[in-house]
Amino acid sequence: MTTTSEVSTRELAELVEQRKIERVLYDYAYFLDMNLPDQLVRLFTEDCYVAYGPDFGATGRDAYRETLDGIGTFFAATSHHVSNVVVTFSDDMTSASVRSVLYAWHRYTKEGKADGYFFGQYHDNFVRDGEHGWRFARRELRASGVVDFHVKKQIPIGRA
Amino acid sequence: MTTTSEVSTRELAELVEQRKIERVLYDYAYFLDMNLPDQLVRLFTEDCYVAYGPDFGATGRDAYRETLDGIGTFFAATSHHVSNVVVTFSDDMTSASVRSVLYAWHRYTKEGKADGYFFGQYHDNFVRDGEHGWRFARRELRASGVVDFHVKKQIPIGRA
Amino acid sequence: MTTTSEVSTRELAELVEQRKIERVLYDYAYFLDMNLPDQLVRLFTEDCYVAYGPDFGATGRDAYRETLDGIGTFFAATSHHVSNVVVTFSDDMTSASVRSVLYAWHRYTKEGKADGYFFGQYHDNFVRDGEHGWRFARRELRASGVVDFHVKKQIPIGRA
Repeated sequence: MTTTSEVSTRELAELVEQRKIERVLYDYAYFLDMNLPDQLVRLFTEDCYVAYGPDFGATGRDAYRETLDGIGTFFAATSHHVSNVVVTFSDDMTSASVRSVLYAWHRYTKEGKADGYFFGQYHDNFVRDGEHGWRFARRELRASGVVDFHVKKQIPIGRA
Repeated sequence: MTTTSEVSTRELAELVEQRKIERVLYDYAYFLDMNLPDQLVRLFTEDCYVAYGPDFGATGRDAYRETLDGIGTFFAATSHHVSNVVVTFSDDMTSASVRSVLYAWHRYTKEGKADGYFFGQYHDNFVRDGEHGWRFARRELRASGVVDFHVKKQIPIGRA
Repeated sequence: MTTTSEVSTRELAELVEQRKIERVLYDYAYFLDMNLPDQLVRLFTEDCYVAYGPDFGATGRDAYRETLDGIGTFFAATSHHVSNVVVTFSDDMTSASVRSVLYAWHRYTKEGKADGYFFGQYHDNFVRDGEHGWRFARRELRASGVVDFHVKKQIPIGRA
């Protein structure tokens, strides 16, 4: 049990690294909402895997970058709200499993199309190296549910 | 005023313990959305008190567990988004008062029933011991407001 | 690269101070939702600048306080959900730039008026001194988009 006279260095190191990982999660949301795909993809490793749906994903940063071309034409605006962040580090702290919750609002460019809402979870694997810091090695988006969303099939959260 | 050359051990201990408490808050939301009530109740002490409304609460973990039976039959899906977490520790850091904000979306199993939305605050008392770490001793949900929600009477936040 | 045997004092100091800044962000939301404008304005410096829209802002705490009179009469209820908090400190850690994301729900006192929703970003400048701790020196609210919101013109987030 931590007391004020004993705080482990490991726990402090995890706090420091978690803050850096959260920064990447929030920069992802920021670059997405700002329609800055070139800055967004830099948060991913070159051999990353990204899955936004059972039929909608990409292997490798170049392939992932291509899927982002539509952000600016398909959406007039989006807002990504990330919370409930839980980080579990590997023993050597060079990788981490990260779970978070997403609420996202989407306004489409197509006239008359109702705003789309997404409720779900991100399940991410992060890795870090001395040159790039923490980056997404794998990002998977799972849906609790959607309202008027454009993607018809989602990866389910696996509710019991 | 904290400078880079002086960081108090107490402040660091609070950071470490707050991260653990946040983990419990987020696991609660996760187990709820995943419909895992048996794992959810383990986050509570045996003599816990839980209040979801003025006429809807439970004293003791066993009684609370019974109220959770309906999660899987009543809801087709839910999504709980917890943010604005503020933790105040007791002097000996074995208990804490925790305030947070909840946005929750509910899809009902009943056909034709509109999705329900909840906006409000959690007011929690946490306790910890060497065996279980931090657990909920008391959880109270207060509403700022609701949209198409199934519970008709809420504990108000007490807006002035 | 941080390891368990090396955590910099600067990084720890930033964690400690970030927690304090987040507390101010969350107290702002709390006082707003609780309709406690007198407590809310104490989170701001006397010469603060607050901009809620291109035509709706205030210079100085007294002028800002006047704009808050309508909270209790205009809104029946609100709920402010703040997440994605990114803090960048000045070298001497007496000021900080803070970016966060807001989802806000508004119920109006005017009968028949649909609830208003706001999706956007806060861009804040914080300063601290030994007497008051961290306070808002500048707060600017930018919109990704709104639904049935009462303010017709927003400061845009500047989406590319």
